[in-house]
Amino acid sequence: MASPSSLSPPPVPMQLFARNREKLLRSLRDHLASISRPIQGFVLLQGGDEQTRYCTDHAEVFRQESYFAYLFGVREPGFYGAVDVSSGRSYLFAPRLPAEYAVWLGEIKPLSYFKERYMVDMVFYVDEIVQVLHDHFGEAGKPLLFLLYGQNTDSDNFSKPAELEEMENFETDLNTLHPVLTECRVIKSELELDLIQYANDVSSEAHVEVMRKIRPGMKEYQLESTFLHHSYMYGGCRHCSYTCICATGENSAVLHYGHAAAPNDRTLQDGDISLFDMGAEYHFYGSDITCSFPVNGKFTKEQIIIYNAVLMAHDAVISSMRPGVDWIHMHKLAEKTILESLKAAGLMLGDIDGMMAKRLGAVFMPHGLGHFLGIDTHDPGGYPKGTERSKEPGLKSLRTIRELKEGMVITVEPGCYFIDALLVPALGDPTTSKFFNREEIIKYKNFGGVRIESDLYVTANGCKNLTHCPRTVSEIEAVMAGAPWPLNSGSSKIKEEKGSV
Amino acid sequence: MASPSSLSPPPVPMQLFARNREKLLRSLRDHLASISRPIQGFVLLQGGDEQTRYCTDHAEVFRQESYFAYLFGVREPGFYGAVDVSSGRSYLFAPRLPAEYAVWLGEIKPLSYFKERYMVDMVFYVDEIVQVLHDHFGEAGKPLLFLLYGQNTDSDNFSKPAELEEMENFETDLNTLHPVLTECRVIKSELELDLIQYANDVSSEAHVEVMRKIRPGMKEYQLESTFLHHSYMYGGCRHCSYTCICATGENSAVLHYGHAAAPNDRTLQDGDISLFDMGAEYHFYGSDITCSFPVNGKFTKEQIIIYNAVLMAHDAVISSMRPGVDWIHMHKLAEKTILESLKAAGLMLGDIDGMMAKRLGAVFMPHGLGHFLGIDTHDPGGYPKGTERSKEPGLKSLRTIRELKEGMVITVEPGCYFIDALLVPALGDPTTSKFFNREEIIKYKNFGGVRIESDLYVTANGCKNLTHCPRTVSEIEAVMAGAPWPLNSGSSKIKEEKGSV
Repeated sequence: MASPSSLSPPPVPMQLFARNREKLLRSLRDHLASISRPIQGFVLLQGGDEQTRYCTDHAEVFRQESYFAYLFGVREPGFYGAVDVSSGRSYLFAPRLPAEYAVWLGEIKPLSYFKERYMVDMVFYVDEIVQVLHDHFGEAGKPLLFLLYGQNTDSDNFSKPAELEEMENFETDLNTLHPVLTECRVIKSELELDLIQYANDVSSEAHVEVMRKIRPGMKEYQLESTFLHHSYMYGGCRHCSYTCICATGENSAVLHYGHAAAPNDRTLQDGDISLFDMGAEYHFYGSDITCSFPVNGKFTKEQIIIYNAVLMAHDAVISSMRPGVDWIHMHKLAEKTILESLKAAGLMLGDIDGMMAKRLGAVFMPHGLGHFLGIDTHDPGGYPKGTERSKEPGLKSLRTIRELKEGMVITVEPGCYFIDALLVPALGDPTTSKFFNREEIIKYKNFGGVRIESDLYVTANGCKNLTHCPRTVSEIEAVMAGAPWPLNSGSSKIKEEKGSV
Repeated sequence: MASPSSLSPPPVPMQLFARNREKLLRSLRDHLASISRPIQGFVLLQGGDEQTRYCTDHAEVFRQESYFAYLFGVREPGFYGAVDVSSGRSYLFAPRLPAEYAVWLGEIKPLSYFKERYMVDMVFYVDEIVQVLHDHFGEAGKPLLFLLYGQNTDSDNFSKPAELEEMENFETDLNTLHPVLTECRVIKSELELDLIQYANDVSSEAHVEVMRKIRPGMKEYQLESTFLHHSYMYGGCRHCSYTCICATGENSAVLHYGHAAAPNDRTLQDGDISLFDMGAEYHFYGSDITCSFPVNGKFTKEQIIIYNAVLMAHDAVISSMRPGVDWIHMHKLAEKTILESLKAAGLMLGDIDGMMAKRLGAVFMPHGLGHFLGIDTHDPGGYPKGTERSKEPGLKSLRTIRELKEGMVITVEPGCYFIDALLVPALGDPTTSKFFNREEIIKYKNFGGVRIESDLYVTANGCKNLTHCPRTVSEIEAVMAGAPWPLNSGSSKIKEEKGSV
């Protein structure tokens, strides 16, 4: 039997994390020099610990804290890591495991194993941190520790600075590290890009597998299972970047469907649109891909209208992306493109600029156009100091409002949804009702929605699409009817050119 | 194409949780009466909340806290629940969701939805708890709240009592509820048993699927993925009871292999033994099953010796289980059966009672024979007040030392492992070395280990095996060679009879 996959999980080069540390060192030293502070002290991060569920001993598979993963790439729980700002030396501190660990959890690895695997200069035990940092501090007085403390602008939660006993024997700086390290994470290296590309390759293939397997009568979660299995079985991805959104019919208008209270448990109906937002993670680096298509493999007239409206927005944004471009402008470009299509199809009436002034794009696309992607699905750095979130509909949901820079990885995910909670007020508002053609719009009640999401790498002159899924109506219908992907014909070539601007 | 599964996810009867509440009421009222306390107050439990990962907005799929699940069966986060000890009335308190929930997370359900779905008497919002409990308290003075506070004897963690603002307006009792409610969970009802049986049916079938798909050259995690997919795709089980242990070769001697630091990533070799400890969970109720078999489908001479030693222990225990039997006695029966087989095969020398007196069973089986199973994999109640954990090797790892009672569900999971960290000291100790035949034992270096685990329901006169996997060497070899399961021949009948004593 031919293998159902062309995937082969690549080895992870630990140089990736060594280079992340070098990048942080350069940025931090530059920053300290710019404010005339001495180039000394230690960056100290505490890795994550395994968590148990409530009072029980049940533990989900540990996943490393993302900043710690970025600097050290360590998959095991219970570590600390440090970087000497002056010498550049890197340290890992491993938990000292009890002898019975060998019986229950496996070989107790020597410190040399971690030194070699994670390519750091020195490895000690966690209980030696205080002594080591004192011994290795090249200056007089208490060693200075740069600790990670700052707000995540998606969750509004604060990162927890490393905790040590005897912290009073150190000088601590809680303000410097977070913005500098966060900014390092915004621009991806070639090695980081390779992993994000691989995660995209896995997810793209798994999405195609879902397209091939889907049938009316199935449960939504069976497609989630199909995606997860393909990603793990052939791609080696044990984790996903986020909970799978497997929405069909009117559920496809629920932006973050799939959670415990809406657990992908609807039965697929002939004629449904579907929206699958699913992405695999490979050694911390993720992907975030959405495909929308008819459950039965053939688009209806209405589905073509909405799908193509979103696809045109997706393609218009990708064609316009390059360094220096304003992300709010891209968001508005997507809104405008969708509104123009809705007008052409008779759902909207009147002047597009008038609709834009009333923020009617946000009635159909209440979420932001896209977000940074990396070790976190919503990778940090979207709102650096001095930037502020808009209060306007749609724009307030943007996870970043920055100008694009070479090396950013950002999702492009326009959508068009028919959400009563937004349409009813807009239709009832005398200042906006005139833009809506009720007679046409009513036909889309219970339609659900369409989202098309790709992951883009910003290049020197444009951007590169890391995602390779069937996108046009004809590509999707061909693949769902059994055609190979990529298609053998010229259409896949057109796809490639469109994808890589 | 024939369906690869005979599974069909059953509806979950919410009477199950109503009866759990009735059982608690009976137990709590009896207890209060027995110590001459008034039959009044509210049992108040706080359900779990969705957790985000470190500072990010990443949330794993929410899984309800187990005590709350037991009493209310609620799958959504953010709830509280109460039972009026006097009237027996049951209450749920739902979180008041913001309007934008409808856009991002789905329909905001009316309180009547939860009342009907969860079969409680009344539903209010969380922000109404204080008022409702005051209004509904039939006595003068501050309402009495029975809160859940007590230690889990597997994790040593304490359950967190429900938190309310204005707790000073209530009387609180932290001592009464935990032991009473925990004891309710120990004895399973028919409805609970149905779900545990279904989780076992799913897992048994998924284990057989793994046996059919396994080949040398695969990665261990590909069998994990195969199990997870079968359980979710056909069984509708989104969660597993615990992290899959997919151990092959010498990894099969690592009792809790498969976690993040030992992530099922070895390549299977021809000649390996394998040990798969995997169990699916269905609407909170779990299963816990281990199968061991050769990766290439044919047992070697050594594998037959060790496998049959463990299988004889497994069967001997199951044949002896009935109400009133002492679990420590069962543990020792398993040890003794294994030691006898090892002696018969020439690995051990001398007097079995002498080996038992030196606790040599624990050199080969350092874990306990089994544990309660229910909403938690290690279901609570193993050490009620007045019982104490042994300090002896092997016995100290027992998660319960209780006498069996009708209605208990408990795992039977003997194992035999070749673990250097235990064998080397035992061989080096002058008081125990004489029992070991070094020449034979050395042949098993790097063998790994075997575990066979089934889930048993204690009946009035014996026990019922809920697990239906191929168990004998010939059954396993037949299924791995392509035979149907259950086998068509008389051997499956023998299996059934042995399994259901």
